[in-house]
Amino acid sequence: MSSGIMPPVALQMSLLLFFALGGYLLASKINQSAVVGEILLGLVVGPSVLGLITYTDFVQAIAGLGAVILMFVIGFEFKLEDLTNIKYGVIGLVGIIVPWLGGYLTAIAFGFGTGSALFIGTALTATSIAITANVLKEMCILDTEFAKAIIGTAVIDDILSLLTLSITADVAAGTVSLVDIAVVIGKQVGFLVILALIGIFFVSKMITQMDHSSIAKRYPEFVFIFAVMIAFLFAALSEFVGVSAIIGAFIAGVSFNGIDLTHSHDIAEGAEYLYIIFASVFFVSLGILVDLTALTAPVLIFIGAISVVAILTKVIGCGIPARLLGYSGRDSLAIGFGMSPRGEVAMIVALLGLNLSLIGQDIYASIVVMSILTTVVTPIAFRNWLFKAEVAACRWE
Amino acid sequence: MSSGIMPPVALQMSLLLFFALGGYLLASKINQSAVVGEILLGLVVGPSVLGLITYTDFVQAIAGLGAVILMFVIGFEFKLEDLTNIKYGVIGLVGIIVPWLGGYLTAIAFGFGTGSALFIGTALTATSIAITANVLKEMCILDTEFAKAIIGTAVIDDILSLLTLSITADVAAGTVSLVDIAVVIGKQVGFLVILALIGIFFVSKMITQMDHSSIAKRYPEFVFIFAVMIAFLFAALSEFVGVSAIIGAFIAGVSFNGIDLTHSHDIAEGAEYLYIIFASVFFVSLGILVDLTALTAPVLIFIGAISVVAILTKVIGCGIPARLLGYSGRDSLAIGFGMSPRGEVAMIVALLGLNLSLIGQDIYASIVVMSILTTVVTPIAFRNWLFKAEVAACRWE
Repeated sequence: MSSGIMPPVALQMSLLLFFALGGYLLASKINQSAVVGEILLGLVVGPSVLGLITYTDFVQAIAGLGAVILMFVIGFEFKLEDLTNIKYGVIGLVGIIVPWLGGYLTAIAFGFGTGSALFIGTALTATSIAITANVLKEMCILDTEFAKAIIGTAVIDDILSLLTLSITADVAAGTVSLVDIAVVIGKQVGFLVILALIGIFFVSKMITQMDHSSIAKRYPEFVFIFAVMIAFLFAALSEFVGVSAIIGAFIAGVSFNGIDLTHSHDIAEGAEYLYIIFASVFFVSLGILVDLTALTAPVLIFIGAISVVAILTKVIGCGIPARLLGYSGRDSLAIGFGMSPRGEVAMIVALLGLNLSLIGQDIYASIVVMSILTTVVTPIAFRNWLFKAEVAACRWE
Repeated sequence: MSSGIMPPVALQMSLLLFFALGGYLLASKINQSAVVGEILLGLVVGPSVLGLITYTDFVQAIAGLGAVILMFVIGFEFKLEDLTNIKYGVIGLVGIIVPWLGGYLTAIAFGFGTGSALFIGTALTATSIAITANVLKEMCILDTEFAKAIIGTAVIDDILSLLTLSITADVAAGTVSLVDIAVVIGKQVGFLVILALIGIFFVSKMITQMDHSSIAKRYPEFVFIFAVMIAFLFAALSEFVGVSAIIGAFIAGVSFNGIDLTHSHDIAEGAEYLYIIFASVFFVSLGILVDLTALTAPVLIFIGAISVVAILTKVIGCGIPARLLGYSGRDSLAIGFGMSPRGEVAMIVALLGLNLSLIGQDIYASIVVMSILTTVVTPIAFRNWLFKAEVAACRWE
């Protein structure tokens, strides 16, 4: 009977999946990415509009699993060489500085104090890799040169903006030295390099050997469980060191790129099914997180301003370095727009600021809506402008 | 970055999967079912021995998902006709009454009061379908005649023992009339019949049509999300009516038996991958739930007695009716042993009794250990005695 095992779980899960399906229908109606449909539907059914579902611990936990699985699957399509390009480091760095300045100055111009302006600047720094990568995947352009640039840059950008966030919090809390900052940067970069080396030179070999062991011959699901365990382990280790969990999951995915199995279930195929269910729920949950009730007329004006700044500073801050580094005009624009979605990253920064009482409900809601707008813009720019032909030819499988 | 989404989730998930892998290795070492290995390993790493993991809300939630997915996948292998056999009703009814009496009388013989004895009797009634079905599946004998009898009977047994539980709780709490009992029975049976009819005559047709819609052609994952949503929806509805969630998930799975899809991802294949991850975690969690510290010498004697009674009363209470109804001697024994695992069902009954202060920690721990012992006995009886030849020929895929 097992019904005693937390009654509402089944109900919450069925609701989340039901809303995900609604998101697909909405996306199909407005001819947008399924991601956009899911976030918008999550917003509509969430507490601020219909109130059919709230962001419970369960929703949060499932969304957390979804984010890890999503980046694990995205990782399959990348090799180490795709990520160690110096160009990405340059684009990532400039693409952090320009939005930070843009956000800070806009906030000051609107009369906010330094503490709030610091948080708004930080909220504008980090790209939501999860959303961008999913949009690229859905449009069948994940294996293009500029898509690799976007992901590679976004990974670097993610590390840099996490640093920005911890520095911002430190600045807001008290003093911070250049030495502290250097130590944090060194620790995190060193950790990621070690994790990647372990994944690529050790775990991938281990999986190949394991596939020929008697245990894999007896239990063809063993290697698949092992692979998913590694995804969550790398995610957990990354979190422990202060890097984002999804970066760890991504590195785990990269480690499994191109592994051929004889006796075991296919890792990529299995992960894709986990992805279908849990990534959908993740995107719906992003919409549920939003509370629209704090929006008044002056707040809406600020949202308009900050959203335009958010997009322009990424298009300029990433697009111009990309162009200077030799990418074509269209690819540079695509990199700029591809780096624009802020998604859950900005929301988390905003939540931290709210919890520290450094920003009010108005700025909190502004950052959240800005992050949704920037997230919706990328698929629109890609679908209806930059990659119209590619989208028409694509049927995601 | 999304790391802010509940930090410990990735760590807990990686630990659970790590322990599941350990369970496979243990099972392989002692030549037992993977289920037994996972439960035993959960017990060892759980709070009562090593304390490496506890039964958190997250573990509970994931185990709940696992139980639903497990029964959904088991359902795929059944048709409606497999479940509407009057024989199963007879075996199920006798197979509830005999263990109930056996448990009650044993408890009285050991000097326990009426309240405690009522709970012990109830804890002995319900078979853990999840465990039995998984053992049968793992041994490649899920499509045999007696396996169908076990599952069909276990479903009926599950409904009947839920009724027993609610009656026991009512008796313990105050008065209860025969009319009340009749109403509950009527409501639950009626609900399950309606759910099965909706699933088989409506949802399955809907899926076939949906597969040919433009949305499925554009998004081949749409139908799969829909199917999983239905599994959780049926589970949630069942829980709402007071029937076990996993019975609802099972009926959803039965509804999808034999559906052929053209444009969409394969439902059975996808569900199998979800099953690999979440059923493993479910079985590990059953072990984690156990607290062994309450076990003293007199308690251990009682556990021995009650465990023997638990197995014998199912072997007799189900095996004899089965033999009388025309099953072979071996099949009747298999049905008796197949109905023996109490698993999470007894644990939930025990938890309820503990919460109502009707039983103490000693009886609680006894019921839990009894349920593990009965769960371990079935695979052993099947593997090393009744189906030695079949197991040798089987390689689960």
